[in-house]
Amino acid sequence: MPQTIDLNADMGEGFGPWQMGDDAALLDIVTSANIACGLHAGDWDVMAATMKNAVAKGVGIGAHPGFADLHGFGRRRMELPRGTLQNLVRYQLGAAQAVAAAEGGQVRHLKLHGAMANMAAEDADLARACYDAALSIAPELIIMVLAGTAQQDAARALGCATACEIFADRAYNDDATLVDRRLPGAVIHDPDAAGARMAQMVREGAIITESGQRIPTRIDTICLHGDTPSAVVIATKVRQALEDSGIELAPFTGARV
Amino acid sequence: MPQTIDLNADMGEGFGPWQMGDDAALLDIVTSANIACGLHAGDWDVMAATMKNAVAKGVGIGAHPGFADLHGFGRRRMELPRGTLQNLVRYQLGAAQAVAAAEGGQVRHLKLHGAMANMAAEDADLARACYDAALSIAPELIIMVLAGTAQQDAARALGCATACEIFADRAYNDDATLVDRRLPGAVIHDPDAAGARMAQMVREGAIITESGQRIPTRIDTICLHGDTPSAVVIATKVRQALEDSGIELAPFTGARV
Amino acid sequence: MPQTIDLNADMGEGFGPWQMGDDAALLDIVTSANIACGLHAGDWDVMAATMKNAVAKGVGIGAHPGFADLHGFGRRRMELPRGTLQNLVRYQLGAAQAVAAAEGGQVRHLKLHGAMANMAAEDADLARACYDAALSIAPELIIMVLAGTAQQDAARALGCATACEIFADRAYNDDATLVDRRLPGAVIHDPDAAGARMAQMVREGAIITESGQRIPTRIDTICLHGDTPSAVVIATKVRQALEDSGIELAPFTGARV
Amino acid sequence: MPQTIDLNADMGEGFGPWQMGDDAALLDIVTSANIACGLHAGDWDVMAATMKNAVAKGVGIGAHPGFADLHGFGRRRMELPRGTLQNLVRYQLGAAQAVAAAEGGQVRHLKLHGAMANMAAEDADLARACYDAALSIAPELIIMVLAGTAQQDAARALGCATACEIFADRAYNDDATLVDRRLPGAVIHDPDAAGARMAQMVREGAIITESGQRIPTRIDTICLHGDTPSAVVIATKVRQALEDSGIELAPFTGARV
Repeated sequence: MPQTIDLNADMGEGFGPWQMGDDAALLDIVTSANIACGLHAGDWDVMAATMKNAVAKGVGIGAHPGFADLHGFGRRRMELPRGTLQNLVRYQLGAAQAVAAAEGGQVRHLKLHGAMANMAAEDADLARACYDAALSIAPELIIMVLAGTAQQDAARALGCATACEIFADRAYNDDATLVDRRLPGAVIHDPDAAGARMAQMVREGAIITESGQRIPTRIDTICLHGDTPSAVVIATKVRQALEDSGIELAPFTGARV
Repeated sequence: MPQTIDLNADMGEGFGPWQMGDDAALLDIVTSANIACGLHAGDWDVMAATMKNAVAKGVGIGAHPGFADLHGFGRRRMELPRGTLQNLVRYQLGAAQAVAAAEGGQVRHLKLHGAMANMAAEDADLARACYDAALSIAPELIIMVLAGTAQQDAARALGCATACEIFADRAYNDDATLVDRRLPGAVIHDPDAAGARMAQMVREGAIITESGQRIPTRIDTICLHGDTPSAVVIATKVRQALEDSGIELAPFTGARV
Repeated sequence: MPQTIDLNADMGEGFGPWQMGDDAALLDIVTSANIACGLHAGDWDVMAATMKNAVAKGVGIGAHPGFADLHGFGRRRMELPRGTLQNLVRYQLGAAQAVAAAEGGQVRHLKLHGAMANMAAEDADLARACYDAALSIAPELIIMVLAGTAQQDAARALGCATACEIFADRAYNDDATLVDRRLPGAVIHDPDAAGARMAQMVREGAIITESGQRIPTRIDTICLHGDTPSAVVIATKVRQALEDSGIELAPFTGARV
Repeated sequence: MPQTIDLNADMGEGFGPWQMGDDAALLDIVTSANIACGLHAGDWDVMAATMKNAVAKGVGIGAHPGFADLHGFGRRRMELPRGTLQNLVRYQLGAAQAVAAAEGGQVRHLKLHGAMANMAAEDADLARACYDAALSIAPELIIMVLAGTAQQDAARALGCATACEIFADRAYNDDATLVDRRLPGAVIHDPDAAGARMAQMVREGAIITESGQRIPTRIDTICLHGDTPSAVVIATKVRQALEDSGIELAPFTGARV
């Protein structure tokens, strides 16, 4: 049986008259779409259009909730009470479920956005609060987590269906954290390098760090960035490299981790 | 079998640090709460708190979607494409469903807010688009409509479960429309008068107009305003007058009209 | 003395992470920039960056206030009390003045945006209320008006410094109104045609209608659109055509009309 | 010559249909009003109405800028680039200047709001960036600072006109910081105690700490809170206690500190 991998990207990040990213092109490449839910980006129309396209192309629909910070695109940390955080997640998930249903789809996974995701990657209690809130509404939801972070710990503790994610274009430290963006080599801009690297990590079932170490980990999905000018080129190359390696592209199924 | 009637009020209209109305007091009086969904008023926390209280007090939870116009409180008319209107309704309904579920409740009815409601009262096609969008997500939803308006026509055409509403504190014209607010007598400020009037209309099953005419209509629920200083006093009097008339207060059940 | 004309375009319409239009390229073509003031588009950083570039390139800075409707980009009509409209204009103008001053610039003109502009083009009282509000803060402000509309009537009645504008890419009816966008030929997509047409109108001092009639009018500035994919191409061609006709590009000076 | 003191309170914190505080009553008590500028609270109409009342009552008008975080009321910390912070301050100050001018007033002071103020109280560089941005627009502006904090250091370094503020209802630690709100006695709820305490501090020209120590400091103005139910009662008592002590109420004049 061939090895399979999922490709995911954030989408539906337009707002009113403003567009972001080339969702139509990306939907031809990825197998999972993380769709903004209207508070940090996206609106009801963008959500509906993106979900409609995802359904048409057989791409898995994910709710991608973030902080209610449109101007900051959900990238600014906010210290919120746990209950507020949970209400925020439920609000966005519920909205996404309704819009997806109307487009003949279904929210099958959830991935936290921006600062909320970063905070959850560092704080398993916070991550668990968010995931628990989502699962209380949708028990079958697959939680997408950053491999090797507190997000994964939280999902494991909850025993929920999970998809573990690595980044296509980011270098890793030896403790599985990402190399600081400000350091040279932190972001991999060469599409071929990104592709080769991903194929290798998936085949080996390990994060390969900058120093060459292997950190064994489940890898269910690869995160592609959608909002850079070269996003579609990189995504295409990564997909090609994986297929050339005999790895099959397929939506994740959500194992318990 | 005693006659029954439902009392409803708009609630959950705070936002962040701002409060509006005395929801706690109103929840002891009404049997149905129309809860704002975060776009014209309300937020995830206000929704959750209001729904939690509604569950505790056995008050029926309604989604109360409006235009995405916080500053204008959803009272400004917007000409939107039908699809946008439907996405707007679904987004808010889905969010409300998720938040309600987490509080052990369930969205059992929907009532349009402000300018969206006014436009729907005049335009059955628009009303139908909104209701249809909601029912596509929640087929068992009871649609609350203004008795004698295009809202009621739309619900009838859809054959959905419906609750017909009259206003406690507004005078009616002979064609069942409301007397213009700018005219004398349009708003009934006397709590005793409002109470007596409601008891009479419910007993007679008719809107009684300013000129004294009877317009026979289904009356399932009476709308109490929640955001005026005297709101709780009027609500209490209306409830008392109904009970004194031998009319029982009970949540509506949603007949097909 | 050679004939001169000003070219203007709307700019600074990004918001947070979202961009709109190629302001840098347009600033090399136009002589006046109408800069969004943060309520329908733009924010303090976008305003500052755009104004800084305008100063560096010698482009005249205009405040471009609109309705406080970010999601609708200020394109949805709102019925507001006159006082509110005036406060809205002043708020945005004042903000623009402060940001411009910090960049070494100055707000020298004002142009209404979107639905506010459309309403002002139809209703001289409304236009006058807006302009009067702005002039009460900045008496030397040049008011940019749509030639032949109620905007121009309002500016004339106020006796303020004015710049009269025609559209580069829109066909005109015989009453100087714009041909409805939904009709064929309403929008001129051919850059060469747009350029030739503008040169002719400026030389003749008249709007040339679709039927070929001449409506004599002051023409101080030509509006170029900035938010379409071909915006920069059209703008370049129009500028070239004007220069080829011996018409000099120069910022307007604001005659009393 | 009798000793004088200014009383200030935050105002104009309504938004659209939502009200906050009893500004009309407070304007009869205070001599300075810090008026929200539309990003964390307030809007153009609230600003205009509050400024109009302030002018009528001879109360000094202050711009009270905060983070652009309406839902969080500007109370959530945001890490922003210095340039963004400066643009934010200028945007709000400029808007306030324009609205004030239209009401026959003038912005004579500036006080930072919420989290922006807290951050400035801890970080003189940040405070200086904010004040410098404001002064670049309005060199004669009086900067209101929290006595004994980095805000005061920043104003001193800039050499600008300054008004030093103490809190009427908060206990002080021996290092002039406020006692943590979560500790008993941190907030003084007894209006008489608050009044007596303020009279004593003003007479002595010193902050009196919880342990009874004196920290000599300039005191130009006393901050009264406006958004609690008992705000007007406390404000009245403090004013009365000051007058009974022979201290005259008068707007500050802005010494260089």
